[in-house]
Amino acid sequence: MASRFDTISVLSDYGTSDEFVGVVKSVIRAIAPDVTVVDITHDIRPYDVKGGSLTLARSAQYLCPGVVLAVVDPGVGTKRRGVAIEVGDGSSYLVGPDNGLLASAVGMVGGATAAVELTEAIYQLPAPGATFAGRDIFAPAAAHLCAGVPLDALGPRVDPAELVPGLVPLPREEDGAIIGEVLWVDRYGNCQLNIDPDEIETWGERVQLRWTRPAEGVRTARRAAAYDELEPGQVGLIVDSYGLLAVSVTRGSAAETLGLVAGDELTLIPLIGDEEGRGADGDAGSTGVTSPVTLQPRKPT
Amino acid sequence: MASRFDTISVLSDYGTSDEFVGVVKSVIRAIAPDVTVVDITHDIRPYDVKGGSLTLARSAQYLCPGVVLAVVDPGVGTKRRGVAIEVGDGSSYLVGPDNGLLASAVGMVGGATAAVELTEAIYQLPAPGATFAGRDIFAPAAAHLCAGVPLDALGPRVDPAELVPGLVPLPREEDGAIIGEVLWVDRYGNCQLNIDPDEIETWGERVQLRWTRPAEGVRTARRAAAYDELEPGQVGLIVDSYGLLAVSVTRGSAAETLGLVAGDELTLIPLIGDEEGRGADGDAGSTGVTSPVTLQPRKPT
Amino acid sequence: MASRFDTISVLSDYGTSDEFVGVVKSVIRAIAPDVTVVDITHDIRPYDVKGGSLTLARSAQYLCPGVVLAVVDPGVGTKRRGVAIEVGDGSSYLVGPDNGLLASAVGMVGGATAAVELTEAIYQLPAPGATFAGRDIFAPAAAHLCAGVPLDALGPRVDPAELVPGLVPLPREEDGAIIGEVLWVDRYGNCQLNIDPDEIETWGERVQLRWTRPAEGVRTARRAAAYDELEPGQVGLIVDSYGLLAVSVTRGSAAETLGLVAGDELTLIPLIGDEEGRGADGDAGSTGVTSPVTLQPRKPT
Repeated sequence: MASRFDTISVLSDYGTSDEFVGVVKSVIRAIAPDVTVVDITHDIRPYDVKGGSLTLARSAQYLCPGVVLAVVDPGVGTKRRGVAIEVGDGSSYLVGPDNGLLASAVGMVGGATAAVELTEAIYQLPAPGATFAGRDIFAPAAAHLCAGVPLDALGPRVDPAELVPGLVPLPREEDGAIIGEVLWVDRYGNCQLNIDPDEIETWGERVQLRWTRPAEGVRTARRAAAYDELEPGQVGLIVDSYGLLAVSVTRGSAAETLGLVAGDELTLIPLIGDEEGRGADGDAGSTGVTSPVTLQPRKPT
Repeated sequence: MASRFDTISVLSDYGTSDEFVGVVKSVIRAIAPDVTVVDITHDIRPYDVKGGSLTLARSAQYLCPGVVLAVVDPGVGTKRRGVAIEVGDGSSYLVGPDNGLLASAVGMVGGATAAVELTEAIYQLPAPGATFAGRDIFAPAAAHLCAGVPLDALGPRVDPAELVPGLVPLPREEDGAIIGEVLWVDRYGNCQLNIDPDEIETWGERVQLRWTRPAEGVRTARRAAAYDELEPGQVGLIVDSYGLLAVSVTRGSAAETLGLVAGDELTLIPLIGDEEGRGADGDAGSTGVTSPVTLQPRKPT
Repeated sequence: MASRFDTISVLSDYGTSDEFVGVVKSVIRAIAPDVTVVDITHDIRPYDVKGGSLTLARSAQYLCPGVVLAVVDPGVGTKRRGVAIEVGDGSSYLVGPDNGLLASAVGMVGGATAAVELTEAIYQLPAPGATFAGRDIFAPAAAHLCAGVPLDALGPRVDPAELVPGLVPLPREEDGAIIGEVLWVDRYGNCQLNIDPDEIETWGERVQLRWTRPAEGVRTARRAAAYDELEPGQVGLIVDSYGLLAVSVTRGSAAETLGLVAGDELTLIPLIGDEEGRGADGDAGSTGVTSPVTLQPRKPT
């Protein structure tokens, strides 16, 4: 069979302290020796399907055509399905557990055009135990797809509409304020929110942040275009590299400064006339209407 | 010289915070530009030869034919030898310090068919100090072997029987109980034991676990085929992806729950009639005979 | 355009927990699919330009010819320039922010023969925000240079003499003692000093170490050629793999033992007649003259 793709992009919660990732790459290389593996990350928090799903969705628009192999799989060995999902009528495939991990990324690149359940044992490794599907089921499927094995050879069709959907938290609007969620805390402590900058376009330079976990807190953030436009210690609201609002502290960690972690709720309140430290009233005159955030492709695939 | 292999699989305790791994890969690429490096892991605990040896042995059956480069080397710069070991009459080579690190993996793939000590300076880098043999001696040897340099060009023969052996802890049987050792705590906190599932095949669904470090402890474990068959917080005994028994807690860490670390002793006691919390008597009727665990190849190489 | 280079060596403070590195590699692969990326390290402490610069300088002599992509960039999105620097009249290029990060490495390989500011938008990705220049500006520039795009196509010339210089701390001599700085604490806790072994060549086997941070401390170190020549717990002074003096503790961490971190000052005092625990007097008769340390290339490029 002719080689179809030469890139597998891989995301997992395997970490790199054990040999899991090396074994997965060895299995791929034994089946499809000309494939280059690109690691997206393997440091998704163990079992954090939502975090893995968001990371994959952010990356999707930049990944090379080919196969995406993603494994965050707390239900390994149980009845949850393993799947291969075709997108763009065969321009790429995503392989992994059917637990919502792949859903947002699939949506980012236009939705599934077909899907199969991974049941065909001849395209799998014999497994001494049922706990390492990445090695025994998913990596072989990804490699065989690259090597030219047809999707339908891997198992029976699954209706794409019946795949487990992703969980995308939506912001909401209340009395002129926007209540969002911290989607992601990156290595630098920047807190990406599920809020589009357009939502606060008409607001002033300063925005009040309110949160309730781990304790009630309030802080005024200054809107800025780059981290270093902020003064040391100052909290900023910037447009991050994915086009979403993020809370940042220059050369420091916003997550530590505010005590936030991924999944926390954060309320943004417009400050009228740049008044600091006071919340907006219900009649603050905000005309903002909160629409769902979309992680949209930024470049043609 | 014709290129002989196109894969070097690498394991070390270098970590990835320093430039050690990048420099090793650059040295390989300068000598053998067509070789692909597959990282097994670089996060072996510093100086942990036993942990590195077990990790390498688990991985061995999955690695691509070619050269394995392994460096956990507390004795670097002293009289300990650097070696290249041939296995399968030249089907693959293992390169590293002769301190037991390579021994179990060599055994896994059928034993050494030849070995040399790495003494030939023309196949090494000139070193400003004697502390980075991975860069100056082992990586060049691995790359030259891939590029087609004969084994004997690297230095004088060593009798494979005189290589430092690996340390493989064996379980023992006492009054119907099996006393094993935690070989490995993986990222998820699963504790792999040096106990073959066959040893407890005739036991009931529930097994008592006893340990003495850091404090005396006892817990009843349920045998299960997959993590998610367990209830939250329940301790399980599963057959792991290498075919050995492992202690697991679904979506949690068994190592944290029980306070275990690699090297700890753990006693398994059959519970009669699924009675919980009581140990087996000496006359519990167990017919188990404890045989040494073998990490056996699962696929043909 | 003909492919010019097939290697990009990458250093950053991106870490590997987020998708930053995977996205950068995907962007490179989309532009220059035949290029192999060699990771030097991505675990430079966030914003630590000096640490990144020293790591890059240590690695430089071992890197493959091609393009070096380095990003530690606290000033991203502000007026700091992005640059591509030619060395060896086109034998290699370095790409990154003009903040001193690249300077020492450029010096190591003979200095810049040309440089441009990265301003040409057609060789960049359209960016939703200004915070990820590694993805949007530096990775595309590195990949296009590999693919054959001429340096001058990327932007206007910059006088190499006007590039931001690196910070290289120099040791100094006082009353026969040498006052140096900890340049680097590696994974094993070895503390590399900015002191050439030649400086203490005439000293005895034992050297007194004095430091003042976090508290005043004094310790006698023994000079040794390899870690395992030291007794357990003994503090040693060895010539490290880059030819500089380093403080080491065999199978332990010198940094933890002495409480040192990178940037700390450390004073070396000769002990006459191998007296231990007492400082040298001002008239200790040392004839040492402290000259600047040079991280010199050890092999021809």
